[in-house]
Amino acid sequence: MTRQISAAALITLLFVASAGAEVTKYVRYESGGKISYGVLEGDTIRELSGDLFASPAPTGTTLKLAAVKLLAPCEPKKVIAVGLNYKTHLGERPAAAYPGLFAKLPTSIIGPDATIVYPEGAGNVHYEGELVVVIGRRAHNVAAADAAQYIFGVTAGNDVSERDWQKQDLQWFRAKASDTFGPLGPAIVKGLNYNDLLLQTRLNGEVVQSQRTKDLIFDVHAIVSYVSRFVTLEPGDVIYTGTPGATRPMKPGDVVEVEIEGIGVLRNRTSAAR
Amino acid sequence: MTRQISAAALITLLFVASAGAEVTKYVRYESGGKISYGVLEGDTIRELSGDLFASPAPTGTTLKLAAVKLLAPCEPKKVIAVGLNYKTHLGERPAAAYPGLFAKLPTSIIGPDATIVYPEGAGNVHYEGELVVVIGRRAHNVAAADAAQYIFGVTAGNDVSERDWQKQDLQWFRAKASDTFGPLGPAIVKGLNYNDLLLQTRLNGEVVQSQRTKDLIFDVHAIVSYVSRFVTLEPGDVIYTGTPGATRPMKPGDVVEVEIEGIGVLRNRTSAAR
Repeated sequence: MTRQISAAALITLLFVASAGAEVTKYVRYESGGKISYGVLEGDTIRELSGDLFASPAPTGTTLKLAAVKLLAPCEPKKVIAVGLNYKTHLGERPAAAYPGLFAKLPTSIIGPDATIVYPEGAGNVHYEGELVVVIGRRAHNVAAADAAQYIFGVTAGNDVSERDWQKQDLQWFRAKASDTFGPLGPAIVKGLNYNDLLLQTRLNGEVVQSQRTKDLIFDVHAIVSYVSRFVTLEPGDVIYTGTPGATRPMKPGDVVEVEIEGIGVLRNRTSAAR
Repeated sequence: MTRQISAAALITLLFVASAGAEVTKYVRYESGGKISYGVLEGDTIRELSGDLFASPAPTGTTLKLAAVKLLAPCEPKKVIAVGLNYKTHLGERPAAAYPGLFAKLPTSIIGPDATIVYPEGAGNVHYEGELVVVIGRRAHNVAAADAAQYIFGVTAGNDVSERDWQKQDLQWFRAKASDTFGPLGPAIVKGLNYNDLLLQTRLNGEVVQSQRTKDLIFDVHAIVSYVSRFVTLEPGDVIYTGTPGATRPMKPGDVVEVEIEGIGVLRNRTSAAR
């Protein structure tokens, strides 16, 4: 028996299939002194009104990407990070039984093309290219199996670290949480398979880190679940998931790029203390 | 030659002298589902409108303290803390050459009479009574001699700490930054000499910590100056300045009180995981 499929049913099926695979890129930008969220399609931004995390609506305005200044794609209340989360970054250290967490700060966050400014006395500042999770819904005590529902999307981040301070200080605070030590962007992307994306960092054009996110020791869902057992996550909060391989110091004036498949390139220049 | 002082001049002089010593207590509270700031005078609250950190104005409404629910006296974007800042808390450890900083989180903050809820698995939760600095103005690279101008006032805090996690984990994160691990209040007080106040902690009524803030290794101005070299401080941000003496674990159901001279009593009960 042959079954016939109506044209309408076929269109519905195609729509559902494409919606399932749909990837949406969200950006935050300044244009004419006004800060907005938007959806990025090719080199066009469709402006959104309202809160990115509460069903924003298109305003109908479109802008060219080249005509705006991109900002960090969200304004997190909490900036959480995971340490030692790729085997290639562990060196001689054994893998931990649970994620090793620390905090950066909202004032650490800068956007694409903003400058990483070294605080006075910083002399050994390293890049750390990382996949960053952006929370979409309040999450408390969430199981790993349910974590996907609480994730808005992913972006790229640079967990800038002053290695001497990281070794000497009581805790990783100024080493990790200094102003400008948290580049983030260029876009938050929804609909990607964040469990297997290529992450690359380039220093002055040279590839210095290259690894797939499938090599994370604790994956995105395990991290969100673990953090939520202790700390309630809120929309816009971000978690830097850890960096692979080895890192090197950046001299003032260097250009560092973190590129993640499907997300784009997060490019920042460094500068000595101002 | 005898100089005469007019009655008007005398009144002016007295007014200036009393204004110089003026102490103002600010509280944040909920009444009838509405959250407001107010000035506390005796057992009366004078309601304020607007932002506490941008010249709030009295609305003319007054309430009885007993009729409202006090909340944490501000909503910090950043919750910073200093470790090992009293000689009596160092034990065998040498004093550091500069403040040892770490981060708690906005979601750690709870107000007076709110419950410290242990996360699942927390078994060794200690009190740490502390003087807390509340920032009033954006502060970046501020000298210690100028720090007072950037301080709105001081309050009391409890830097609740899970000691086993503090020892075992990569960094002090869940040990210090778990939900409810940052009791704060009851009032922010302006006009106190915060460099010499008696700080006492009581566990179920027994005095377990007692020290004057003049015994801080790094005083309030040194701390604010040091932090501001790395991290830009914003109005409402708070810095827990460190705890004196020894600490003990709190059993679920215990009542812990941090009392600071001129500020009042910050009382919280503890509870097992819910």
